[in-house]
Amino acid sequence: MSEQPQSIKQSEGTSFYTVSGSGKLYGLENQLVHVLAEANQTNQLFELVLITGGKGAYFPLHCHEHLFETIFVLEGKLEVILDGKKYMVTAFDYIHIPPKTIHGYRMHSHKTRFISYTLGGKMTDVYQQIGKKLKRNEWPMTDLAFDAASFEQAEKESDLILMHGIRQLSNTTKPSVLFHSLLPQAVQPYVLEAGEGKQYIVDGQLHELIATTETTGGGFTHFVIEGAKGKYFPPHYHQVHTEALYCVEGKMNLQLNGEDICLMPGDFAYIPPYTVHSYEFVSHSNKFLLLLLPGKIEQLYEQFEEAQSPSICPYFIQEGNLMIDRETSSQYDLVFIEKG
Amino acid sequence: MSEQPQSIKQSEGTSFYTVSGSGKLYGLENQLVHVLAEANQTNQLFELVLITGGKGAYFPLHCHEHLFETIFVLEGKLEVILDGKKYMVTAFDYIHIPPKTIHGYRMHSHKTRFISYTLGGKMTDVYQQIGKKLKRNEWPMTDLAFDAASFEQAEKESDLILMHGIRQLSNTTKPSVLFHSLLPQAVQPYVLEAGEGKQYIVDGQLHELIATTETTGGGFTHFVIEGAKGKYFPPHYHQVHTEALYCVEGKMNLQLNGEDICLMPGDFAYIPPYTVHSYEFVSHSNKFLLLLLPGKIEQLYEQFEEAQSPSICPYFIQEGNLMIDRETSSQYDLVFIEKG
Repeated sequence: MSEQPQSIKQSEGTSFYTVSGSGKLYGLENQLVHVLAEANQTNQLFELVLITGGKGAYFPLHCHEHLFETIFVLEGKLEVILDGKKYMVTAFDYIHIPPKTIHGYRMHSHKTRFISYTLGGKMTDVYQQIGKKLKRNEWPMTDLAFDAASFEQAEKESDLILMHGIRQLSNTTKPSVLFHSLLPQAVQPYVLEAGEGKQYIVDGQLHELIATTETTGGGFTHFVIEGAKGKYFPPHYHQVHTEALYCVEGKMNLQLNGEDICLMPGDFAYIPPYTVHSYEFVSHSNKFLLLLLPGKIEQLYEQFEEAQSPSICPYFIQEGNLMIDRETSSQYDLVFIEKG
Repeated sequence: MSEQPQSIKQSEGTSFYTVSGSGKLYGLENQLVHVLAEANQTNQLFELVLITGGKGAYFPLHCHEHLFETIFVLEGKLEVILDGKKYMVTAFDYIHIPPKTIHGYRMHSHKTRFISYTLGGKMTDVYQQIGKKLKRNEWPMTDLAFDAASFEQAEKESDLILMHGIRQLSNTTKPSVLFHSLLPQAVQPYVLEAGEGKQYIVDGQLHELIATTETTGGGFTHFVIEGAKGKYFPPHYHQVHTEALYCVEGKMNLQLNGEDICLMPGDFAYIPPYTVHSYEFVSHSNKFLLLLLPGKIEQLYEQFEEAQSPSICPYFIQEGNLMIDRETSSQYDLVFIEKG
């Protein structure tokens, strides 16, 4: 039986694609916030921002009542305080921040960058209240110091609770801990070093689990996907799951709802349910951050081979043909479009 | 007066271009060495290798009698021992290793990568002796453990002196120092954190000096060049200087000896004297590592504005038209090709 893309029921959401550098822009004290996805574009499911800042840039200790936050570091050195513990994280480390977790950060190199998904609220409202909306990429932003009155407004109108006012995190401490851990079995904050998540080999690609149904209370699953040039994932859609795809490294030809899109570093794609998509890796070394909401889909991974050792050079994994049983995969909301 | 490219005297050297992933490949214990440039291609001036390795991969403490070595970290966490001091370095940190400096390293994340220029000898000979030549990117390489006999051979035939045999660097110490320093005024080893070099704004591009005539004894100058989309450096050549260009981030359209080349991350270009070249930045954020031999050319930079603060978002620097005085620039071996 061949199921044609055109016969697929369309959901309310519309797929979209944000090119690196586009989107709303807010300036905070020594930081820039690029909005890649807003709640009103994602059916209120999540928001995604890219934060770039200078050495010493910080966000004061705070927590959220409802917001679930994730941070994936792209560049630089970031000191993170998470429930009273201090971590120094660098590229591709992951920080998992469930609601009610007290957290804050300070940047330790001149160009530190991370992307942050927030689920269950509008973090962009906070940036609007405490930052300044910018028309274009402008620098330096010396007049954008944090202001107590703006934070007070954000505390009233958004899901933000400051711990000790907006005073800076101590600048004199020398954080030195580099964390390493297996994923917990419950919803709790954690830091996962680059490449320390459980990894599966899926058709010669490496899929690493960095947040699971267990650690998100079923809210979402988070993967890092790496692959070699030429690796192709055939057309499929999800009936329930929404997919968010951010290009960390490399280049992907994504076919999204019949449109050909080239995802380069910094680009983002939003894929709601019932949207047919397929992709092909174009660079020698490709790394993508994939968010799927709700959770559960990762149970499908038990079908695949667990990687014996963590990824060192993903582009060396070249073997494999996609051998997912179509009936089994559809139980996990991965529906392949067969060729007629 | 218009000086035409065709009237330019050709030097002995030939420009070439190495695409990411191509070149000779050696396997060491838990590491891969990609050769991007060999001494016989660069008029015996230098060699360039890309080293990728797994957590725990190491190179034992050693020194070189004549080799001048530089390391520029691309990804991961690298513990470096340099003249008895220990540093933890991450992406875009730079390590300067003059001859006779005792040094070694251990990788602290699953995929750690750096590029290393060596000048004044053939480090690729060492890799050939202690490693295994690979036909293709293969992984894992469990059978490629370091071997004492191979190191002995390398000590006899190449410029390598081991300090304490090939025993591993201690695995139990926890390095925590992140170094920060101004460049020294003499030839001595140092570690420079990302973005800590002296920076000049050259026609809206940011040029950062990471090794100078002083720190290399006149041997070479090392820059990191960053720029926004659309920035163009017009056709020029050097009468004395050889140029080596490695793409760290972004995309460059390079015109090299009349040929159009697209440099992507991991790609390398070799530009000998009297080779006309020009370039244009294509991505929103571009970062290139530039080596020029011999030193001296950086004195030209005194013509330019010193950046007031280190680079945070280079692509915000958009202003400026190239206003280098042609007569002055030619004194520093930067000869522009004027349009007729």
